[in-house]
Amino acid sequence: MTSTATIPDGATSVTDLSRLSLNTATTKALTLAEAVEVAAEAGLGAVGLWRDRVAEAGVENAAKIVADAGLRVSSLCRGGFLTAADESGQSEALGDNRAAIVEAATLGTSELIMVVGGLPAASTPGGPAQLDGDKDIVAARTRVANRIAELAPFAAEHGVRLVLEPLHPIFAADRAVLSTLGQCLDLATEFPPEQVGVVVDTYHVWWDPALRDQIARAGRENRIASYQVCDWILPLAADPLLSRGFMGDGYIDFPTITRWVSEAGYTGDVEVEIFNQEIWNAPGAQTVATMAERYSRLVHPYL
Amino acid sequence: MTSTATIPDGATSVTDLSRLSLNTATTKALTLAEAVEVAAEAGLGAVGLWRDRVAEAGVENAAKIVADAGLRVSSLCRGGFLTAADESGQSEALGDNRAAIVEAATLGTSELIMVVGGLPAASTPGGPAQLDGDKDIVAARTRVANRIAELAPFAAEHGVRLVLEPLHPIFAADRAVLSTLGQCLDLATEFPPEQVGVVVDTYHVWWDPALRDQIARAGRENRIASYQVCDWILPLAADPLLSRGFMGDGYIDFPTITRWVSEAGYTGDVEVEIFNQEIWNAPGAQTVATMAERYSRLVHPYL
Repeated sequence: MTSTATIPDGATSVTDLSRLSLNTATTKALTLAEAVEVAAEAGLGAVGLWRDRVAEAGVENAAKIVADAGLRVSSLCRGGFLTAADESGQSEALGDNRAAIVEAATLGTSELIMVVGGLPAASTPGGPAQLDGDKDIVAARTRVANRIAELAPFAAEHGVRLVLEPLHPIFAADRAVLSTLGQCLDLATEFPPEQVGVVVDTYHVWWDPALRDQIARAGRENRIASYQVCDWILPLAADPLLSRGFMGDGYIDFPTITRWVSEAGYTGDVEVEIFNQEIWNAPGAQTVATMAERYSRLVHPYL
Repeated sequence: MTSTATIPDGATSVTDLSRLSLNTATTKALTLAEAVEVAAEAGLGAVGLWRDRVAEAGVENAAKIVADAGLRVSSLCRGGFLTAADESGQSEALGDNRAAIVEAATLGTSELIMVVGGLPAASTPGGPAQLDGDKDIVAARTRVANRIAELAPFAAEHGVRLVLEPLHPIFAADRAVLSTLGQCLDLATEFPPEQVGVVVDTYHVWWDPALRDQIARAGRENRIASYQVCDWILPLAADPLLSRGFMGDGYIDFPTITRWVSEAGYTGDVEVEIFNQEIWNAPGAQTVATMAERYSRLVHPYL
């Protein structure tokens, strides 16, 4: 499937958008059906789904909506939050992740993105540390590895891969104690590549001095489950979670990182997942058109 | 030199504060003479100086003020900003860094902290990316290595060590393209340890999965020039540069990291450098008292 994207110098060229995927978090105001519609109309090949939009539509209905539009589900976001130190927290997390695994299978995607969770001292994502809270990041990482080991066989039975997402260290305290691609690959080594993979999200990993080597390693080890693109914007938004932007609006060198991902043998979808209030306020079709233009200019030529 | 610090349960015990150093950035409202006075009165052994406060006092006068109070200068902040891609920017940076080296020598400290600078695309620290700006982080790191090679012999002649500071990746775009201790140690290997060192600043490196190993390596390679402590606070301040806090107010596990630094053989000063508007608004003596109490409880016992 191909579609037209305008190139900034005013010329028009046809870019193949079949590997471009709209993550529903990018068009937060849209229902799943609406997001699928704008993605299909723009000629995209896939959508990445968040569980909240899937739940609203109903899992089987969501699968049908995507399939009827001729799209793939590139990934399901998200499982994770596995760092609880107490038994009830752990048991709750395992239950929620098993449900996410079943949802992913029902939706027809093999890739379940895992945001593994922060320190127990974090009362809430983005919030202050609890006084005398548990700040032992080494122990929290060990618990993540243990929970992944408990979930991997269940995921495998459902044909689903647990996709470890290294989050930018800005989120190490409150959202993910896995901060680098290398660290995720180290954790993954105990599992076959069809059970545990990694996602390369430019926003989270662009700064990493080991990035080139670790992308190459992820390719060699057959673990790249998803390539996600969005830009690092300064000044940070009041809620730093919302500081993402369209490719080209910030500091990330997309041609270089995309080349590394391509050289690593990745041939899958390129998902755009942007949390940004201004983009959420814009019409969905406009957002997808901008996404497609930036993809055509900064990503697709280097794939 | 010893002093008294109150322990939170109400008991009082005597903690040796001779390795504790007040960085003048922590008491931003004070002149150099005032900062030295509160540090000396509290029984601290050293001060870390920023160049702006040194310039106000005059370099030789600043050296005399510190020496007369019986304190050491634990470090001078800062040299760096070495990533300019154009010749005039590079020449300007070299000139400024040579001046900083001479200042460090005059002040009697061997440790010049280097914040190496961000991407050329950053018009100003914390500001938006310039459209079509230079976002090549790999090339920027190479330029840092080249500038360090140009400066190291000059620093050595003055008995000054260039101390590479890995900054938290939140600052990779706009302030420092060196983000991890391992990366700084890799860059340092070409130079003798008395010419190029590293600083372990908990705020910048606490999240790093390789931290324990890289601190041990830094110790083995005789490169730990400074140990700086302050905490990672959430929510981030409007200006994320000011999101630092007193040890114990945020997410960092000070006992563990301090033990690693101690096991690596570090016996130098422990500098407290906090950028925080609320702390800047408080009386200097109160700030130093809180610093000392937190040091006594969370750092000193693990040194």
